[in-house]
Formats: sequence, structure tokens, C-alpha cells
Amino acid sequence: MGIYIPDSTQPRVVIVGAGFAGLKLARKLALLPYQVVLLDRNNYHQFQPLFYQVAMAGLEPSSIVFPLRKLFQKRANVFIRLAEVESVRTEEKILNTSLGPLAYDHLVLAMGATTNFFGNERLEKLAIPMKTVGEALGIRNAILEDYEKSIVTPDFEERQELIDIVVVGGGPTGVEICGALAEMRKYVLPKDFSELNCGEIDIHLIQSSGVLLKGMSGKASAAALKSLEKLGVNVKLNTRVTDYDGAYVHMNDGTSIRANKVIWAAGIKANEIAGLPADAQGQGCRLKVNRFNQLEGMEQVYAIGDMAYMEEEAYPQGHPQVAQVAMQQAEQLARNLKGTLSGRAWKPFKYKNRGSMATIGRHRAVVDMPHIHINGAFAWFIWLYVHLYKLLGTKNKLFVFLNWMWNYVTYDQSLRLIIRPIKRKEEEVCPDSCRE
Amino acid sequence: MGIYIPDSTQPRVVIVGAGFAGLKLARKLALLPYQVVLLDRNNYHQFQPLFYQVAMAGLEPSSIVFPLRKLFQKRANVFIRLAEVESVRTEEKILNTSLGPLAYDHLVLAMGATTNFFGNERLEKLAIPMKTVGEALGIRNAILEDYEKSIVTPDFEERQELIDIVVVGGGPTGVEICGALAEMRKYVLPKDFSELNCGEIDIHLIQSSGVLLKGMSGKASAAALKSLEKLGVNVKLNTRVTDYDGAYVHMNDGTSIRANKVIWAAGIKANEIAGLPADAQGQGCRLKVNRFNQLEGMEQVYAIGDMAYMEEEAYPQGHPQVAQVAMQQAEQLARNLKGTLSGRAWKPFKYKNRGSMATIGRHRAVVDMPHIHINGAFAWFIWLYVHLYKLLGTKNKLFVFLNWMWNYVTYDQSLRLIIRPIKRKEEEVCPDSCRE
Repeated sequence: MGIYIPDSTQPRVVIVGAGFAGLKLARKLALLPYQVVLLDRNNYHQFQPLFYQVAMAGLEPSSIVFPLRKLFQKRANVFIRLAEVESVRTEEKILNTSLGPLAYDHLVLAMGATTNFFGNERLEKLAIPMKTVGEALGIRNAILEDYEKSIVTPDFEERQELIDIVVVGGGPTGVEICGALAEMRKYVLPKDFSELNCGEIDIHLIQSSGVLLKGMSGKASAAALKSLEKLGVNVKLNTRVTDYDGAYVHMNDGTSIRANKVIWAAGIKANEIAGLPADAQGQGCRLKVNRFNQLEGMEQVYAIGDMAYMEEEAYPQGHPQVAQVAMQQAEQLARNLKGTLSGRAWKPFKYKNRGSMATIGRHRAVVDMPHIHINGAFAWFIWLYVHLYKLLGTKNKLFVFLNWMWNYVTYDQSLRLIIRPIKRKEEEVCPDSCRE
Repeated sequence: MGIYIPDSTQPRVVIVGAGFAGLKLARKLALLPYQVVLLDRNNYHQFQPLFYQVAMAGLEPSSIVFPLRKLFQKRANVFIRLAEVESVRTEEKILNTSLGPLAYDHLVLAMGATTNFFGNERLEKLAIPMKTVGEALGIRNAILEDYEKSIVTPDFEERQELIDIVVVGGGPTGVEICGALAEMRKYVLPKDFSELNCGEIDIHLIQSSGVLLKGMSGKASAAALKSLEKLGVNVKLNTRVTDYDGAYVHMNDGTSIRANKVIWAAGIKANEIAGLPADAQGQGCRLKVNRFNQLEGMEQVYAIGDMAYMEEEAYPQGHPQVAQVAMQQAEQLARNLKGTLSGRAWKPFKYKNRGSMATIGRHRAVVDMPHIHINGAFAWFIWLYVHLYKLLGTKNKLFVFLNWMWNYVTYDQSLRLIIRPIKRKEEEVCPDSCRE
């Protein structure tokens, strides 16, 4: 039996994933005579750029995610389904999902990317990724629990293992986590844990290449490095993590660091779906698409956002996997699908880079715009403004703004709570899959 | 090896539990020359009266809990430890905890109460309690998931099982949950789930006695019943739930209701600790104490709050298990322990009932004060004001107030998110207990 969606005379567009790309496309198509089916494993859209603040106890998850149903309350042509996607049968135009098969006229794959451990199973098992808001919350819990354990641990080495943190990957995520951790060590922990010598907490950032924030300007990289070092983060460049056994992080220079927590922000790979030809994938599992985001030989199957690999004159190696590209591709595909209805010819995608930015801490950020680089306090205010502006929902904007003001004035991220939802006991006894 | 607490010349008071009673006592003793050790399994204090709003997606857990460490940042004589308590050896004055043994001069048991399933193991396994903020969040997730499942369930009976809810227990918790559920059905669900016929959602409240809000005035009980019926809740009085098999709730009148969710708010019992004489416990597992909250024959072991059973002239059956009693007992014990330092005689506890209240929904509440009863919109504003006033922390007050204003104006509880923190994989593979 198939997944239940009412019949319609409108062509059906199935969108897999409600990230920046999928959600933008769904919102545009909702206004057109298409039947839109939006599939996601969560009932909310996640605002990834602020995950690190959830992990660092500065924001609540609910402030940076937005319930999907609320967005489409007035759109009778949009159907939201919580489902996992399993495979696609492109010849029959059928998508197999955890809720059953689903027929489509157009299929848009916007499943984004997941953490890449580059095949290292031990790292995959023991390091902590941060690609979902649930994982960010898991990091928060792990950090807080380890500080609690540390004050009842008399052995110095064991205590160091609990309080030290290794962050792998010097992109925006790694840099922002380290900045926030260093500020927590400076402003919050000495007050909360007066029994702990917070000077003993070491924060390590391991980056495989010679610069931080690799995609950004040289000025931004240098400013980020300087800021982190000023905050007391141990930055190791040109170093690769080779293994982690749960206690020691080993690096390719032969050294190792003892730490109970390794946060892995060293790479991503596109999420995968079964049923596509083997040569559909390019580097990092991305799906090769033409300038209309179509997969080769499958005109009505598209990939957009982090999942898509498209070569453009200015981007012969493909576009960076960032929100801007995702949203612009969604907009272009929406325009093209709209054009189809009136018989207009499709236009190829062209990326307009509006700049990039990262924050390192209080009054410290770097902003690259097409012809200008800014850093310091002014860049920090730009960063705050842009993120607030991009966040979905008036209430979220208000609550994030108030949280930021509060934290700014009090020097205090106040959400230092280890909270876990309690499952119904029946689920503990018997996992979801065996209940049906 | 014992739990690490620095030596001190001050007498050590060990407080087990940071609920209304334990936290109030710790805050009072923090100002006196006592060494205070506060044990709890969570790193936060929970404001129980608002759990139902967390369950109904109206408030975030973080708005109604408060981190313990933040409260005692400036108190060098207070030591907070996250631990489970196992047993007490009163002759040696030692408490056994999950972190090891701990010596005390005074031991205050303030572990509160837990859900009472009256020995029915099936109910315990399958019904959902709401005595912690984690359980409240679990209820929210269960409700939202079932609505999602219902829209892909074509069979009418199966769909009913997913959308109908049975609440057992007509005390304040049960009444408040039903009121909030009925309002969600009326204002929120028709917008979010236009595919669902919300008129089909049944909300049942099962109460064993002949009145709702048993401890309150007759007027309050009648007003609550009237309000709930007006909101379309099926209230069944004088009916006892005898069994639940995961699909059908069976009652002592021979009828049954099919429902996937049974929320259990039908009774509590005091939390227990091993090592006390068998006759120390009274009804509902409460520990019998004298008017100084001392256990019989153990002058330096106290029970306060929901755990304590004390007979007073006006309360020959013991006090109600409510926050007011807990906080007043804590205050009296703090005064008495202070008196000890200056050789003053101890004063017996005397409960001053300041009234009780419950809310049923928008503009609907009942308030009993010593000589007056109020209901309707004015009572509802009193309820809002008192709960805001009692909530700990300026930021919590601000955020709860803003949430309430937002929900009031928009008719929308906006936190309809199914979010779970992701554990580190190592923990999934190997539970905490085997990691050490």
C-alpha cells in the first residue's frame, strides 16, 4: 500500500528534505498549480548556522528550528509527510519511503549532507558530529556531564580527560565552536564550577590544511587564527587526526591528546539514495547535475543544494556547499518549473556569491563580501544582524534576539541544563520498528 | 572511595533532592555557617506546576527549570553533586550514593514523590506519567508523532486509536492537561492538520471519585467540570481504570476505550530510600516525622515536602502534598537549624494554607483562597500572575511571560517540534554503567 496523498489534476512534485534548498522550493511551488509533497524525517526545518550556539547552551533548539506544518497552514496543495526515503525507481517514477511507495511527476532530491568520517569506523563511533539540532543538544549534554564528573574525579589525568575538548576541522563550524568554548571557559565556568581550576581546561582545534576558514579570504583566515589564539585555543594547523580510541586522539605527526570528547567538524558528504546509476555520483557523494539541476538522462529528477554537484564557468570544481547556493538553486528551479506551465524555456543556474562570514566570539567576527573584507566588532554586528534576518519566524527572531541581548549583558549562557525527553516505557522495551 | 567534598569545620547538612523543599532549604542554609551538600539526579530545579504546558507545546523545558549551579555561584559553602541516592546507614551517619559514600551531620530527605501505578505493572509499562520535565517532553513527542501517523492511516479505527487521548486522574494535573488538549484541538490542530477531521479527536478524563479537583472547594470542582464539558472533554466520574493493554483502556464499569496514549495522573507515592526501619513509612510511602520534621528515633535525619507525613491538629491525616507545604517545612527547618547554632529551642511546624488553584484554559481558572472562591477570567489572571511570580529566575519569568503573551494573541502554541538529543554512539553501544 502506498503513502496516502489525495489524487489531484496538478502535476506532483515530490521534494525530499526540508533544509534550505527543499524548504525554499516548497514555499515557492506552494503558490503555483503544483501538488507539492514535502518529505522530511523531522517535523521542522533546522537553521544550521546556529547549531553551535545550541551546543554551547546559548540558545534553545526551539528558537532555531521552525515547524513545517505552520509554514504551510494555508496551502491546500502542500502535503507534509514524516518519512525516511529508501530508494527511487526512476523508470516507473516511484519513490520508496518508510511509509510506502510514492509516485511523482517531478522528484527533487534536497537531502543535504551528513558528517564525513572518511571511512574511519572508530571515529564514526566515538567522535561527536554536529549536523543536526539533536546532535548539537547531545554535545551540550556531553560537555555539561563531563564537567559534573570532573569535580568528583580526584585523579589529575582522568580529570583532564573529562574537561579537555578536541575539535577537528577548521571551517566555520570548528572555529565557531572553539570561540564559544573559550568564552564559556572564561566567563561562565569559573562561576559555575568554583571547585574546578578552569585554567586547566584545554581546547584544541586540529585543522588538516595550513589555514582556518579555507573558503574565505586570507585576511579572514589570519584574523580567525589570531582571535582564537588570543582566546587561548590551541590551534594545530597542517595536522590530520588519524584515530581516536575513546581516550586518546592520535595525529599524523605522531603526537596524541587525551580527551573524552572529540567534536568532528572535518568534512561532509552528500546523503545518499539507492536506485540511481553508479556514475550519477561525483566527489563527496554529490549527484552530478546540469545547469538546470537535472540528473543526467533523468529530466524529471533534480538534485539541489548540498547534494548537487554542478560545474559552472566560475566554479569549475562545483559550488561550495552552503545555504546561499542551496536557496538560489531552489529559486531557479522554482522559476523554471513555473515557466514550464506557461511554456517558457528554462534558464540555466548562475550562482551569485553574496559573501561569507564566521564569528569567533564576543565582538569578533570575519566577513568577506565580494570586494571587501571586514573583521572585529563591526563584522560581529553584521553577523548578528544577518543571522537574525535569515532566521525563519518572527517569534524565533524575537526569542533569539532577547537571548543574545541577555547573554551579552550578563556574560552568561544560561541554558546549562541536561534535559532528555523520557520515552514511553513500551518503546524502551520494544523499538518503534517492532511495534507495528 | 567516598564522594569528594572538602573537609570543613562547619557541620555538614546533606540535602537529597532539589525540588521545592530541598532547594528552599539549601538556599536558606547557604547563608548560615553550615556546609551544605545538595544532591540531585538532575543539574536543575524543576517547576512542576507548568509541566503540562511543556507537554502541550506551550513552553520550552528550559523556561521552567533553573540550573542549580547558577543559584549558588557565590556560595562557597554549598556543594552540588549529580548523584542517585541508594541507601542510608543512620547509625554511622553515612549516605550511600552512586558516587560513593558520604558522611553527614544532618541528613534531609527531600526526594519528593513519583507516579503511583498502585502495583499495576501493565499500566506502569504502557501509560505515560508526567512527574518530570523529561516525561512532559516525552508526552509532547508522543502526541505530535501520533498526529503525524494518523494522517497516513486510512483505517478509521486505527486512526482513532492514534488521535484519541485518555487522561486518568482528575486532580489539577489531569484537569490542566485536558483543558490544554481541548484548546489545542480547537485552535491549533485544524490549522496544522487540515487533512485531519479534528472533530474526530476524543479527549477522555477518567476520575475515580465523584468530583474533580478533590482537595479544592465544591465550587471549584463544579466550575472545573463545567468548563471541561464546555470544551468538549468527556469526563467520566466515579470510574476507575483497571487495565491498559497498549490499545484498550479498561474500566471498572465494564466499558473500554481504544487509545494509543494514556496519560497517568492518578496518584503519587513518596520516593523511597533503603536503610530505614520498616515502620518509618506511612501511607503512600511517606516517612513519618514529628513536628520538627525528624524521623522517629533519628534526631538528625529529616524528611520534608512530599516525602514527609506529619500530623498536625488541623491536618490529622497529614498535609496535602503540594509545593506550599514543602517550602514552609523547609523554611521552618532552616529556622530551627539556625536556632541550634545559637542554642535556641526548636519550634514545631504549623502549616499556613494560602489557597490553591488550577487553570482549565483560556480565561478559565478556579482559585480557592482561605475565605473566598473565584473562577473565570479574573481567576485565570491570578493564576498567571502567581505562577509567573513563583517561577525562579528573571529570565525564566521574562521568557514565560512572552510565550504566554504570544500564545494568547496568536491562539497558537508554537513549539510543536519533535526534538531528541542524539547521544554519543559509544553510549548507545555501551550504557553509562559499563563505561567506567
